[in-house]
Amino acid sequence: MDNKILTQVKFDENGLVPVIVQSAGNREVLMLAYMNAEALTRTLETGKMHYYSRSRKKLWMKGEESGNYQEVKDMYIDCDNDALLFVVEQKGGACHTGHYSCFFRKLNDKKDEFLVTGKKVFDPDEVYKK
Amino acid sequence: MDNKILTQVKFDENGLVPVIVQSAGNREVLMLAYMNAEALTRTLETGKMHYYSRSRKKLWMKGEESGNYQEVKDMYIDCDNDALLFVVEQKGGACHTGHYSCFFRKLNDKKDEFLVTGKKVFDPDEVYKK
Repeated sequence: MDNKILTQVKFDENGLVPVIVQSAGNREVLMLAYMNAEALTRTLETGKMHYYSRSRKKLWMKGEESGNYQEVKDMYIDCDNDALLFVVEQKGGACHTGHYSCFFRKLNDKKDEFLVTGKKVFDPDEVYKK
Repeated sequence: MDNKILTQVKFDENGLVPVIVQSAGNREVLMLAYMNAEALTRTLETGKMHYYSRSRKKLWMKGEESGNYQEVKDMYIDCDNDALLFVVEQKGGACHTGHYSCFFRKLNDKKDEFLVTGKKVFDPDEVYKK
């Protein structure tokens, strides 16, 4: 991977950049996560999505525990260089709840509650065994 | 708008939540922006996307200057309640550069530079007249 790409990305004051992940198949938006420079480097080197977890304060590869890897198809950068969009092949589902997308709840017509509209594709109790 | 929705969203330490905006038509991801509680309230009340500009430190309605409004079709919340996805009808283009999407540059196969692949739909010099 060329350093030109890394230097072009504007990481924030915490060294992170927000990343939108979209399914190559149905164009569904799967999740929003964050990368630091190392996560971006590994993602581009391996072709598999890596992130930085703000809660666990560590690098992780999507699917390392669940097997639900995300294979990079395309990467885009926005006009301000401070947000990235990755189009991926999602194995299984993206969400730790077992849903295909993390955005599985939609605002109802009355605008007073979110209803589950996304499909569940795996059982998290089976996949995240301790 | 019901307060239940506002209290469900986890705004960050700056009172902001990241918002992914996707085109209802071709499912293209248009932009990533931020909302505070007031921007979210106005968005849901008016049906037109409002954001909080971190650089200008103020609320703004997309299209207020350019006429390129974004009409809300659907709103989703993610599993952690800390990111929103809006599906919108985009008038004109979303990007201040004149492109339909802010993600108009794609990483090339050699992974050493971004190439413009998105379409330009308006002339910013015409639209943002002073």
